Amino acid sequence: MLDMPSAAQDDERVPHINLPELPGMVGLLVQYPHTAGPLNGLADALLRGPSPLTPGERETIAAYVSSRNECTYCSGIHGAVAAHLLHQEGKTTEHPETDPKLQALLAIAEKVRVDGRGVSPADIDLARKHGADDKAIHDTVLIAAAFSMYNRYVDGLATLAPREPEVYAQHAKNLAEGGYLR
Amino acid sequence: MLDMPSAAQDDERVPHINLPELPGMVGLLVQYPHTAGPLNGLADALLRGPSPLTPGERETIAAYVSSRNECTYCSGIHGAVAAHLLHQEGKTTEHPETDPKLQALLAIAEKVRVDGRGVSPADIDLARKHGADDKAIHDTVLIAAAFSMYNRYVDGLATLAPREPEVYAQHAKNLAEGGYLR
Repeated sequence: MLDMPSAAQDDERVPHINLPELPGMVGLLVQYPHTAGPLNGLADALLRGPSPLTPGERETIAAYVSSRNECTYCSGIHGAVAAHLLHQEGKTTEHPETDPKLQALLAIAEKVRVDGRGVSPADIDLARKHGADDKAIHDTVLIAAAFSMYNRYVDGLATLAPREPEVYAQHAKNLAEGGYLR
Repeated sequence: MLDMPSAAQDDERVPHINLPELPGMVGLLVQYPHTAGPLNGLADALLRGPSPLTPGERETIAAYVSSRNECTYCSGIHGAVAAHLLHQEGKTTEHPETDPKLQALLAIAEKVRVDGRGVSPADIDLARKHGADDKAIHDTVLIAAAFSMYNRYVDGLATLAPREPEVYAQHAKNLAEGGYLR
């Protein structure tokens, strides 16, 4: 569904700080519980809280931004969560390519990923024309902004980033079914 | 102390969504309380929670990233908070330019701001040489990542961004003295 990054340099990297041998965000959340609370709280509010966008659509935006930022861990896990949820929601894996509202929101997310100031009134008008309301636009911008953070947190500390999809499968199933507040 | 952005285009912009007439983050937090909780919780944990870096040093990193991202609101408010706290901590406004540990951490923050993968082992070694431990490095990376989010949230929705320093003075004093959890 989404492009996977070709970040071969991620394979053997050594984290910049001492962390448990757990991939990506997982090691950071275990080692630094004081910030883990609000980081998980934000992910849950944004991706599972009340929104006109389904959880599958919101995870698709998260996975898209992570993929564009070539964050191997985040795009691996959120790509798998998005696929799981879109399937549950009765949508095909082609949904992101075929739904004009989601296409317009992904275009806004891409602008935010590069520089928030790049979002134009025309980008917003197009999303509204396809049915996005204020809350959908707000949630899209904040999801794209939040993954601009999560991606930098995970990669800025050079956390472990396995490339094998099976590493992500069970964790993605747990996040898809249980959310981010366990 | 810190470069202020020259983003003249911010002066008269109209927000992309309906918001109360309050500058920057303030309008967003009022209008969208469900995400305001974890956003404030993260700012407080990061900028006021336990850390080997003082609150003034951490606000300096936040203001620096916001300034480099040319986010008028965030650099205005966090620059004023940083100045207030550095003064309280008995540091001069030249502290960020003269402290080698903070210089090394600001260099890491700048790499994270551009792309987390840019942080090199040599960047980390230099910070350690000047006394930064794992927690200081962690906090620096997460502050830079978090302001990569806050800046995009504020600018991606084209929130009001006054350029007059007096607009920020009282709010900055409240944040410096009371933190982000009120």
